[in-house]
Amino acid sequence: MSEHHVEFWFEFASTYSYPAAMRIGALARERHVAVRWRPFLLGPIFKAQGWGTSPFNIYAAKGRYMWRDLERTCIAIGLPFVKPAVFPQNTLLASRVALLAFEQGRGEDFCRAVYAAEFGEGRDIGEPEMLAAILRRLGQDADRLFAQAQSDAVKVLLRTQCEEAQKLGIFGAPSFVTPDGELFWGNDRLETALDWAVR
Amino acid sequence: MSEHHVEFWFEFASTYSYPAAMRIGALARERHVAVRWRPFLLGPIFKAQGWGTSPFNIYAAKGRYMWRDLERTCIAIGLPFVKPAVFPQNTLLASRVALLAFEQGRGEDFCRAVYAAEFGEGRDIGEPEMLAAILRRLGQDADRLFAQAQSDAVKVLLRTQCEEAQKLGIFGAPSFVTPDGELFWGNDRLETALDWAVR
Repeated sequence: MSEHHVEFWFEFASTYSYPAAMRIGALARERHVAVRWRPFLLGPIFKAQGWGTSPFNIYAAKGRYMWRDLERTCIAIGLPFVKPAVFPQNTLLASRVALLAFEQGRGEDFCRAVYAAEFGEGRDIGEPEMLAAILRRLGQDADRLFAQAQSDAVKVLLRTQCEEAQKLGIFGAPSFVTPDGELFWGNDRLETALDWAVR
Repeated sequence: MSEHHVEFWFEFASTYSYPAAMRIGALARERHVAVRWRPFLLGPIFKAQGWGTSPFNIYAAKGRYMWRDLERTCIAIGLPFVKPAVFPQNTLLASRVALLAFEQGRGEDFCRAVYAAEFGEGRDIGEPEMLAAILRRLGQDADRLFAQAQSDAVKVLLRTQCEEAQKLGIFGAPSFVTPDGELFWGNDRLETALDWAVR
């Protein structure tokens, strides 16, 4: 096992979490850094600062820029990109299923498949049927996982994650946290965060 | 003369414009890209989206992060950094003087000196006396430049710059615009913008 660690805080509705989720595996392996994936919800954090939706929807110029920049970013690294019709998407069920999947050691594949569907194909992963299709493709029992995901234990687990994110000073996604408490925000800081962890 | 061009839109109050202003010269020369420096004011753009001050002051977690991230960024590239007591600073006079200085072919040195004072030494470049000291160090006649900077011609010039920035979809600084109309935002996109200009 690696002695170096980074926490990868992501939200399924976050656009730049998509390239980060697709890139972090190989980049962390190269540097012998162990990554702990931490799904959380940005909604409560945004609400606390007065936003009822994504700032990319509230601030039009910034939103237009973000979609073009994300497209350029994906092209540059050879990642498929289709702008989803629904944005931001309801990520509550996906986040709960992800927490479960990580407990069962299958979290990363599920998360990457969710991001690929949402931003690589433009699907709505807020639809339970879409999530069920993703789980079936991964050979998993969607009905059983959905039932477990709605348990009080998983609901509390996700709420606790969100509270921890806020305590860490996280205000956006993706964010990376190193064991010495340094916070790095954005897909652009992925390499910097990993390099910090091994320095 | 280079056949490749990039516009560098910056605001003296913008923290990440500091490393961008200090880095752009060498990076552009390496790629044979000519840079047109375009000072503008973010205040009117922020006001139009309901902000009375910098979003880094409005959103505390984001502000705390930015100062730490800026410090790390400066350390990584060997740039002095002192957090100024006043933020954001009044950049109206500095921006008008910069426009004049560019017309006289001495703009870049002035802008770098302003940024070095503001974020390298933590001074308040909203103070005319501070700006006068910078101009004198550059061997220029501060009194004459201040008088010219308050002329209607320069006032209109700055207002026109700000309107053009908004038309280009600029919502923050630094921003880079290539002749084919691509917009790149942030010190993190400096290399990408220059590479785009020569591709």
